[in-house]
Amino acid sequence: METNELQMIISQEQLLKHWQGHRGLTRRIIEAFPEEQLFHFTLGEMRPFGEMAQELIGIAGPGIKGLVTREWEPLNEEHGVEESKEKLLALWDQATIEIDEWFPKLSTEDFQDTVKAFGQYENKVYCSLMYFIDNEVHHRGQGYVYLRALGIVPPNFWEH
Amino acid sequence: METNELQMIISQEQLLKHWQGHRGLTRRIIEAFPEEQLFHFTLGEMRPFGEMAQELIGIAGPGIKGLVTREWEPLNEEHGVEESKEKLLALWDQATIEIDEWFPKLSTEDFQDTVKAFGQYENKVYCSLMYFIDNEVHHRGQGYVYLRALGIVPPNFWEH
Repeated sequence: METNELQMIISQEQLLKHWQGHRGLTRRIIEAFPEEQLFHFTLGEMRPFGEMAQELIGIAGPGIKGLVTREWEPLNEEHGVEESKEKLLALWDQATIEIDEWFPKLSTEDFQDTVKAFGQYENKVYCSLMYFIDNEVHHRGQGYVYLRALGIVPPNFWEH
Repeated sequence: METNELQMIISQEQLLKHWQGHRGLTRRIIEAFPEEQLFHFTLGEMRPFGEMAQELIGIAGPGIKGLVTREWEPLNEEHGVEESKEKLLALWDQATIEIDEWFPKLSTEDFQDTVKAFGQYENKVYCSLMYFIDNEVHHRGQGYVYLRALGIVPPNFWEH
């Protein structure tokens, strides 16, 4: 794919900033949960938000590394945080550092390459990244409902 | 802003397709609600999903038109659908047509311009568009919890 044939509108640095902005808000949603409810409160037989957050951690760091190296481990959604909000947040912050480290290693051309993320999800690199972000926004929206149902006022969605 | 100084990675057509893909899934979430619950079921004192969908309709068509024309009406989140799922879906489909019509009228350079969306939200054009999309994913995630709490299995998130 010749990227110069396309009308390109969003830069690599802008997408990184967009992703990290969302991750900052998701971190504040994790923080807003009481520890007990983070790992046990559910609605509609869905997962507790602490489990959704571990899925996001399993995607973020390994995802960006895989998009750069094209080497993949199977998706790991359990990280042994032992119901500790502090441990979960430490893993979250580790992923933040890994994203900042690996994202700039992608070349402009890489974004239009087709890859098989985690060895199974075939998509263009930019689509995989947008899926990582959208999946986080999707689950975070669910976390907002959990917080509201617990009587907790969550941070505003538009404040990154 | 000289766009050719930036490492551009996503094209205008790709962002349009991404947005419309999300909107197709949101339409299926609207359809998945029984009409009564669409306009009345809530959790945590939040809005019914039918009201959230009207907010999204108020943003989508008027939003893309405003980004092109730079003329804005105040955001309107109520569209008099009179608790009719059919009327709500008709407005949804109208917005789909408007987006396809107006989105290509943006020039490549427009995306890096700073605008005041709906006369009040100052941001770059590409950021406004990504906000429109993220806001939809956020509320749709909430709709997923409502459906699960109603015992309804929603369409898979990754099937656009």
